Amino acid sequence: MRIALGISYNGGAYQGWQSQASGQTVQDRLERALSLFTTQDEVKTLCAGRTDSGVHGLMQVVHFDTPALRPESAWVRGTNRYLPADIAVQWARQVPDAFHARALARSRRYAYVLLESPVRPSVDAGRVGWYFRPLALEPMRQAADLLIGEHDFTSFRAAQCQSHSPVKNLLRVDIVQRGPYWRFEFEANAFLHHMIRNIMGCLLAVGSGAQPVSWMQTVLQARRRDIAAPTFSPDGLYFLGPVYDPEWQLPTRTAAFDWLP
Amino acid sequence: MRIALGISYNGGAYQGWQSQASGQTVQDRLERALSLFTTQDEVKTLCAGRTDSGVHGLMQVVHFDTPALRPESAWVRGTNRYLPADIAVQWARQVPDAFHARALARSRRYAYVLLESPVRPSVDAGRVGWYFRPLALEPMRQAADLLIGEHDFTSFRAAQCQSHSPVKNLLRVDIVQRGPYWRFEFEANAFLHHMIRNIMGCLLAVGSGAQPVSWMQTVLQARRRDIAAPTFSPDGLYFLGPVYDPEWQLPTRTAAFDWLP
Repeated sequence: MRIALGISYNGGAYQGWQSQASGQTVQDRLERALSLFTTQDEVKTLCAGRTDSGVHGLMQVVHFDTPALRPESAWVRGTNRYLPADIAVQWARQVPDAFHARALARSRRYAYVLLESPVRPSVDAGRVGWYFRPLALEPMRQAADLLIGEHDFTSFRAAQCQSHSPVKNLLRVDIVQRGPYWRFEFEANAFLHHMIRNIMGCLLAVGSGAQPVSWMQTVLQARRRDIAAPTFSPDGLYFLGPVYDPEWQLPTRTAAFDWLP
Repeated sequence: MRIALGISYNGGAYQGWQSQASGQTVQDRLERALSLFTTQDEVKTLCAGRTDSGVHGLMQVVHFDTPALRPESAWVRGTNRYLPADIAVQWARQVPDAFHARALARSRRYAYVLLESPVRPSVDAGRVGWYFRPLALEPMRQAADLLIGEHDFTSFRAAQCQSHSPVKNLLRVDIVQRGPYWRFEFEANAFLHHMIRNIMGCLLAVGSGAQPVSWMQTVLQARRRDIAAPTFSPDGLYFLGPVYDPEWQLPTRTAAFDWLP
């Protein structure tokens, strides 16, 4: 039968999501835990969105097939027993065989949390990006609006990106401020490699006044990576998870969502 | 001249605040950084409130005497250059020689952040306490009210406590909830060793229904540690800092305060 899991993790200690020979990835830890819990030799999972080294996950979704029969609550508790403290299964659902964590995701959501302060992070080190220049909300909102819709996002694409096409549909960018913390929330049908970190670099150039709002349009239209701002730090990036058709009846958030400022 | 510093840190990697032979404490790291920045052989600091292993600080305050002349902003930037990523000086002020970080603190503030969820912490591991049973606000508020005022807090005192007297004046306990996160804020003239973690254990026993509200009164009046709940985890405990007379014109919070749910 097919099982779907929602998973939260702090990416700080891992070499990203995707399995590597080193075994030091979130997927490696999850599959080892599932193998120990099911006593299967090997459990292979497929995820909704791979995250990079240092990027966190609040609701990664995976699916896998298993002959093991367990109540949903046992999948959560049993797997968590074998996971390190910074990774936890939040929910488990038995799903129809037609469910596919990656192919059926209608969109993906990310949040970027930023500390705007003359002083670098400390208690929140590794959990937030840092910008020491003052930022203005309105220019960043206007610049973000220029990116909404279906565009060729080549200017915001990492060289090693494996996506078939640079054309993605950016559905929304919400920017809110709480004290010195800013939260940027992004939703798109899919994202290119480093796309959000590259957009963040450009938004901050506009927010700090180093570039005018219209520069975002120039960058987008140039379709050249070298014209955009440098890739911003992974520390403040959180994968909020995929959005599926409601018919699948999967949770849309986890308790960890409320952890962010 | 005398300098006061406000300091934020994540206590997870350190053996508490107070200097030890191991050198693995927050005070050791701070004094080493000050020594490097001032090129003095040794800088000895005195703090407002020592924190235990695993306890975090949002605004620890220290003072020290130095012949070094630096602008206040240089004390912040220069010291932070020599501090690890999870400790940062937030502000620096030149203060009169009469200022004393410990003796002049009129009260101390702490926050305890708790995740109430059937699933253990993950992205927030080491930053929050965890309780998997549902909690009720009103009984906890009533139980906390029974502790307000000047009392003999022997029942909540660790065996190794070095305080001269078990009598302390608890000024307030505020309890707020945001989604699955609870924040308990405590203010007292001073706290006994483990006092907040011991009170937390008892509040949660009441909040979960394991004990009635009146049990808190029984525990307080017994003046026996063995009658109270076990000492709760340090993971969710944050020292918010001391409160001084306004005449000293010291900051009352840091940017890190907004990091907590």
